[in-house]
Amino acid sequence: MSAKKPIILVTNDDGISAKGIRSLFNAVKNFGDIYVVAPDSPQSGMGHAITINYPLRISKVDFFEDSVAFSCSGTPVDCVKLGIYEVMKEKPDLIVSGINHGANTSTNVLYSGTMSAAVEGAMENIPSIGFSLCNFDSDADFSVAQLVVKQLVEKVLQNGMPEGVCLNVNIPDVSEENFKGIKVCHQAKAFWEDSFDKRLDQFGKPYFWLTGHFLNQEKTNDTDLYWIDKGYASIVPTQFDMTSYKALKELENWKL
Amino acid sequence: MSAKKPIILVTNDDGISAKGIRSLFNAVKNFGDIYVVAPDSPQSGMGHAITINYPLRISKVDFFEDSVAFSCSGTPVDCVKLGIYEVMKEKPDLIVSGINHGANTSTNVLYSGTMSAAVEGAMENIPSIGFSLCNFDSDADFSVAQLVVKQLVEKVLQNGMPEGVCLNVNIPDVSEENFKGIKVCHQAKAFWEDSFDKRLDQFGKPYFWLTGHFLNQEKTNDTDLYWIDKGYASIVPTQFDMTSYKALKELENWKL
Repeated sequence: MSAKKPIILVTNDDGISAKGIRSLFNAVKNFGDIYVVAPDSPQSGMGHAITINYPLRISKVDFFEDSVAFSCSGTPVDCVKLGIYEVMKEKPDLIVSGINHGANTSTNVLYSGTMSAAVEGAMENIPSIGFSLCNFDSDADFSVAQLVVKQLVEKVLQNGMPEGVCLNVNIPDVSEENFKGIKVCHQAKAFWEDSFDKRLDQFGKPYFWLTGHFLNQEKTNDTDLYWIDKGYASIVPTQFDMTSYKALKELENWKL
Repeated sequence: MSAKKPIILVTNDDGISAKGIRSLFNAVKNFGDIYVVAPDSPQSGMGHAITINYPLRISKVDFFEDSVAFSCSGTPVDCVKLGIYEVMKEKPDLIVSGINHGANTSTNVLYSGTMSAAVEGAMENIPSIGFSLCNFDSDADFSVAQLVVKQLVEKVLQNGMPEGVCLNVNIPDVSEENFKGIKVCHQAKAFWEDSFDKRLDQFGKPYFWLTGHFLNQEKTNDTDLYWIDKGYASIVPTQFDMTSYKALKELENWKL
């Protein structure tokens, strides 16, 4: 680490007014010079969406102490792109995203705007971490999560990040006394069994609202879902190379 | 393959009126019973976004011959979920997505609604293929792409799909005489160097519109970008497990 203070970009998907991003800001503010660029409205479930067909707007906000902070009309990935290329005009030393209100374990990494912001950071070759607390409450207690944030930010500023990778960090909803520590593990094989709440509107026309429940089909123990359940924070190193190298070999037999 | 005709779900991200989805429909219609559920408006760049905060609408359309076809107010992933759980009420034997107007090579797989629909299919354990033509024109010539679709749909209905994987198929913008064949390969390491077109609106306020150019940083040859450039269609087997198993080992040294 150079003598110069690290520059840290803070974002999330629950929106700039969420308690989670304020908790994240408070946990990282003494580590460097902080920029905040976050969505002006909730963007949960936006995944890696970017805004192509419409222009984006940003507005300065003043509730992050002396930091430079903007709300943005776009998605979390838009916030990272606008943050780097328009607000900061340089690449930060670290991107932190969250703290998400609700878990982003297992395949939820694909739907999560919080994690997609971190994946976008990895694609920019910037050390990036997404943090999520396993509690959806808008007034959740982020104190254990803040301890994890501080420990990991210190580690990443020291060690850097493996190439092509960001971290997906989930923190269990437990008190400090019941928090067991941190485990590095892989993404559990678990999936949403979707259903839709179908209702008729005031004109008698149907609408459909996504719901469902999450089914764990994992057969091994060393996963995010397993360790969260035992009171540990989970770290999944997450890559943007989606190639299945195993399947590459299987497809050789197809004789295309 | 059983004697029963396969059930095939067709979707895309350019919207149900695009030439690409009609070309895909025409290429697959003789392989089975076809359902079409596709966005009612362009959804390019929506990645794996799902609609959580709003309900979804579907409307029957009649321009896909005798098939059951609906336009949907949501994202491509919403279309897959609604298609399976509300329109079809069963899992199809195959999901095909596209044919996208424009390439989804390399890291564009993360931004692509077309490919996210296929990834969602893989998460549902349904053989799924995303097709993209390397031509953004709304009136592009899809005839070579249709040949590739037919060849691969036949293969996948015969062989099934490796577990946890879908296919990302990109087709070069060449004539039939110049088309070289099909190569199975990995996702190139290439990235958008973003910039924003910043302008003032009629009220003097700034807005930002995403642009940029794509930089290939790949050092090996066996990639989608390489083969497309040589006149081949590329197939990248694409997985939803984003864990970096290589980085798992590196992180052991962090002593968390």
